[in-house]
This record gives sequence, C-alpha cells and structure tokens, in this order.
Amino acid sequence: MDSGQAYIFDVFGTLVDWRSSIARQVADVLPQVDANAFALDWRSRYQPAMERVRAGERDYVPVDVLHREMLDETLAEFGVDVPDRSIFARAWEKLGSWPGVSDQLADLRQRALIAPCSNGSIALMTRLARFAGLPWDTVLGADIAQNYKPVPQVYLSNCAVLGLAPEQVTMVACHNDDLVAARAAGLRTAFIARPTEYGPDQDFDLEPAQDWDEVVTDLAQLATRPSLVSR
Amino acid sequence: MDSGQAYIFDVFGTLVDWRSSIARQVADVLPQVDANAFALDWRSRYQPAMERVRAGERDYVPVDVLHREMLDETLAEFGVDVPDRSIFARAWEKLGSWPGVSDQLADLRQRALIAPCSNGSIALMTRLARFAGLPWDTVLGADIAQNYKPVPQVYLSNCAVLGLAPEQVTMVACHNDDLVAARAAGLRTAFIARPTEYGPDQDFDLEPAQDWDEVVTDLAQLATRPSLVSR
Repeated sequence: MDSGQAYIFDVFGTLVDWRSSIARQVADVLPQVDANAFALDWRSRYQPAMERVRAGERDYVPVDVLHREMLDETLAEFGVDVPDRSIFARAWEKLGSWPGVSDQLADLRQRALIAPCSNGSIALMTRLARFAGLPWDTVLGADIAQNYKPVPQVYLSNCAVLGLAPEQVTMVACHNDDLVAARAAGLRTAFIARPTEYGPDQDFDLEPAQDWDEVVTDLAQLATRPSLVSR
Repeated sequence: MDSGQAYIFDVFGTLVDWRSSIARQVADVLPQVDANAFALDWRSRYQPAMERVRAGERDYVPVDVLHREMLDETLAEFGVDVPDRSIFARAWEKLGSWPGVSDQLADLRQRALIAPCSNGSIALMTRLARFAGLPWDTVLGADIAQNYKPVPQVYLSNCAVLGLAPEQVTMVACHNDDLVAARAAGLRTAFIARPTEYGPDQDFDLEPAQDWDEVVTDLAQLATRPSLVSR
C-alpha cells in the first residue's frame, strides 16, 4: 500500500444507487405515491439547498439537516406524510452500492488510501459505509471543510488532512462537474459512468467530458497502471 | 451494531505501545544512543508543544508538525542527527498495538461505532490504523476540532460529527486526566490500565482515579453490559 497516494470518492451516484434505494424505502412507507418520482423530487432539492451555503447565505450545516428540510418539501409536494420524519430522513444512510463496489474498493485499498469526499456528513457516511460495505480508511468530505463541493476548499482540505498534496490525490466520480472542480483544485481525476443513476432516460454524464486521468468501468482498475503504482 | 452508540479512543498509550515502538526505530537508526531514553525525551516535549496551541499562543497545526519540531530538540539534546528527519518523524505512524487490541476492537465494532479521538492528526492516525490493524469506522480527533485534548471542544466536536449527543459516546483511555475532561464535557468514560506505557517504573495511571462508567482489562469487554447493548 502506497500511503503517498489516495483515492477520494464521490458517493451518491458514484458508489451507491440512491434512487432505487430511496424509492424502495419510500414504497414501504408510502405505497400510495410514485416512489421513483418521490426519490427524484427529494434529491432535486439537494443542489439548491447546498447552494445557499456555498453562496454564504446560510452557515454550514451537515447534509442531514438539509435532507430533513428537503423531505418536508417533498412530502408537501406529494401531499402525504409519514409518522416519523426523522427516521425517514435516515433513509440516506441505507443505500445499496452498485454491484461489485465493496470488493473493488477493498482491492484498491491494497494499493492506496481510500476515503469518501462526499457532500454527505461524517455521521451519514460512517453509517452508510457499514450498510453498503464501503471499507474506508477514514471518512472525509464536506464536514472537514464545513462547506460543500464543488467549493475548492472541500477538495483541498480533504487532501490536507491526509497529509498529501493535491497531485497525490485522485478524485473519483461519475459526475463530470465534480471532476472539473477537483482538477481545478489540482487533484488527479478518475471517471466511472453510472448511466442509470437518475433512471433509464438519463442523458448526461454518460461519458467523460474531458481527458480525465483515469476512466474506468470497475473501481479495481484504479491505480493499476505501472506509472501510478511505482510512484 | 447500534449506530446510536459510539466508543472513541485515546490511541498513544491506550492502544499502541509508542515507547517501545519508537525506541526500536531509534535503535535502528541511532545505535549509539539510549533508545528508550530518546523515546521518552521525544515524547516529553509533546504536552508543552500542544499547550502553546491550547493557550492560543500558536495556531493549530497537525501533530506531525510538532513531532518534527520535537525531534529537532531531542536530537540536539542527545547531540546526534539522522540523515532524513522527515522520514524519522513518520516513526509515529509505525507503532505496534498492545496484544489483542486489533481483535478486541473488531469485536467491539460489532456492537458500536468506533473511532480514535487522539491528538494525532487524521493523516497520522489513518496510516497508524493500517500499521497497527485498528479497524476504525472513521478517524476523528484533534484535526476535527483544530485544537488539542483536553480542550472540551475536541470531545464535543467528535461527538457532533458522529451525529451523537455526548451521553451516547464513551471516551476510552488509559489516562485519567483524559477521562476527567471527557466526563466534564458530558461523555461516558471507560478506563483500561496500561501500567508500562512509560516503562516498568511508571507510578501513575495505574488505577482508575474516579468511578468511571466502565473499567476493563480487555477492550472487547466494552459495551457488553445489557444496559448498554439494549439502548
């Protein structure tokens, strides 16, 4: 294992299938609604909620707070309610990973430090790691920077607390915009397509939008090129 | 596993035998010095160095920075030098654990979230976890608070990023003063004796100084009482 090299990961979409996992939990509690539409609506409120923090209009709060507020809005939108909203908000700790992710990360971990760099909180990501079998060395992400991606400080602070320079760290994501920001901050970049994250009709992020440093179809392919391993 | 309960750990002394591990590494590089005395001298500069940060006389720096400065002082004290001081300072990432610690933590992890709450940095603790086989859910500690124990904010921030109230979190240490501070911050407390941390003549921290919530001789005994498991 090369502790002078780390891979940090986007999680929602890149590693876990939040849409069908949330939809399944919604279907259990709210059989009367279109569970897939409910999941998409809930998630659609994510970027606008974070944007207020990024813009400085609101102090940083862990994403769990946003998830609860977004849930209130989605429940109102669908004209339904649940007995205990706080438990339902913990649905984001119970997301299944895409096939093979757990074993692929374990494989990669033989060669580099690995950690999530998610907008999810440490509290959420720690529990999700248990649920989805993500074998992290440590949990990083938005809480470390007290701000949300794609603000540069999130990427930079995550590198810094690992004791690494940005060029020693590779950001892995299925979202091109995450990699644009990571590259601008000086990190290496790796893309993996997750073409059904938003459903069968997804028409974006199907391919790499730039010449990312690595493009893989399996996370175990990361860091296997000789030039990387020998660093 | 009860994710509404966490155990956070002091590491240097409580989980790893820093003294003999450092002495062994010193002996390899500086055969002419008393390696045990060198290790103790290096470590003796730890609390004064952190105290400047706690007192507000110096901005927070990760402990790795202090370790390098302390190394310079100890080398000067012993009138010796090493070819590459930065590599030698990484000696603190290569400390062996007390017998059984790795398996005991893995056992405890079946029942609760576990994380280090050390004055060591995330960078150091992440690598030490690999070396010593400490199966953390995530690495917390001083970096989260940007300050050093026993400042209350270190304990409180560590609980907060786990999404837990202090009373849901147990601080585990072999140092009574660490537990005094944790209890004052509202955390539960657990003591384990490490009577040779400083050597065979150690005459402090041999026994619990207060009625700590748990006193164990094996970390696998933590969280096994029915009142805790059923929470």
